[in-house]
Amino acid sequence: MQKDYIGYSGTVTKAVDDVKPRRYNSQRRREQAEQTRERVLDAAANLFSERGFAGASVAAIAAEAGVSEETVYARFKNKRSLLGDLVSRAVRGDDPRPVPEQGGPRAVVAATDQHEQLRIFTADIVLRLERAAPVVAIVAGASRSEPELAELLARLHADRLRNLHVLVDALAANGPLRVGAEEAVETVWALVSPELHELLRGVRGWTRRRYCDWLAASLGRLLLQEGTRR
Amino acid sequence: MQKDYIGYSGTVTKAVDDVKPRRYNSQRRREQAEQTRERVLDAAANLFSERGFAGASVAAIAAEAGVSEETVYARFKNKRSLLGDLVSRAVRGDDPRPVPEQGGPRAVVAATDQHEQLRIFTADIVLRLERAAPVVAIVAGASRSEPELAELLARLHADRLRNLHVLVDALAANGPLRVGAEEAVETVWALVSPELHELLRGVRGWTRRRYCDWLAASLGRLLLQEGTRR
Repeated sequence: MQKDYIGYSGTVTKAVDDVKPRRYNSQRRREQAEQTRERVLDAAANLFSERGFAGASVAAIAAEAGVSEETVYARFKNKRSLLGDLVSRAVRGDDPRPVPEQGGPRAVVAATDQHEQLRIFTADIVLRLERAAPVVAIVAGASRSEPELAELLARLHADRLRNLHVLVDALAANGPLRVGAEEAVETVWALVSPELHELLRGVRGWTRRRYCDWLAASLGRLLLQEGTRR
Repeated sequence: MQKDYIGYSGTVTKAVDDVKPRRYNSQRRREQAEQTRERVLDAAANLFSERGFAGASVAAIAAEAGVSEETVYARFKNKRSLLGDLVSRAVRGDDPRPVPEQGGPRAVVAATDQHEQLRIFTADIVLRLERAAPVVAIVAGASRSEPELAELLARLHADRLRNLHVLVDALAANGPLRVGAEEAVETVWALVSPELHELLRGVRGWTRRRYCDWLAASLGRLLLQEGTRR
């Protein structure tokens, strides 16, 4: 954000400096708070991955991020909600907008050809899965022994299912589907799950390209009518 | 085994009693050893599920099974190989024959219609998945912190992939497939994974019947040529 701001123009920066010092300062504080937040999330991602959820204490996360424990609690409430924010950041990526307002999902809705929609969708989702799958695996792995993580995992499953309704509605707007909307949503939910991503890319070593092609072709065969196929 | 043996005929039992006491005694010993083995496996399944792999000691498993720790070590070498045997038992079921020699897999190979083959396959595999998925989840959950379980998990993945070649070869014997054999095997491997079974049946609450129908239809659409579809 700092970079974007400076990039606007030297003149604007100067004007803000001269005329609205309070606004300038509050923006700097926002930027610093954002940087602290990112540092804590990075530190937590490293430590959860190295030591597991239970093995990474808030004290260790704070030390790794170079902030106080109080700062971590003030920003994230507790370790569980920190992990939840880590998943959200992985799914969202660098774009601060909510996922449905981002470029990829909007392009899926805007496209008028079902196969093109699936290609845009898979290209977008694979990047989110690459970032999110390792974090979701931490949640799933620890959810057996930590009841509050089982709740977080259930919420992640439910959120993902709700978000995928957007894809199925967008496909249905361009032509009939082979199956009912509910089954279509659950089929997409299963096939683009972090679990299947880990199996095919992590265990089987598929490249991003191969996984994308397989996903777009498979979803086309499972969801779309034969007649619409190219 | 006791039941089968007695069932053969009273005469045979009598003859064995009179003429070959050593053979009779060695069979009783085999049966007792088998019963002990099953009791230890049952106890381990309960304790791993309740306390996790790390939390269930061999001493606790022995106590729950009513045998000595030495007996457990003599039968299973160590806790990791005990867990491996637990997965094998879950996949194999009550039938002592290796999976490819059991009724379901042989019927898949014998059938001459590809869709019929997929229906036989899914009806057979769903029962194995119901038994195996919880045990595989224990392996996967603990594999992050226990390197030797990561090896076991890798072996389970590899075994499953190898076994599924039998299905794909049997399908290909009855007609062309839509994709190459390797991609067909990896596609089946992903769709009938314990992970996907847990998502659709555990998380989404699908019935066995619904999961079977979805699996047979989905595999048909992904693997078989359109012309062969009913």
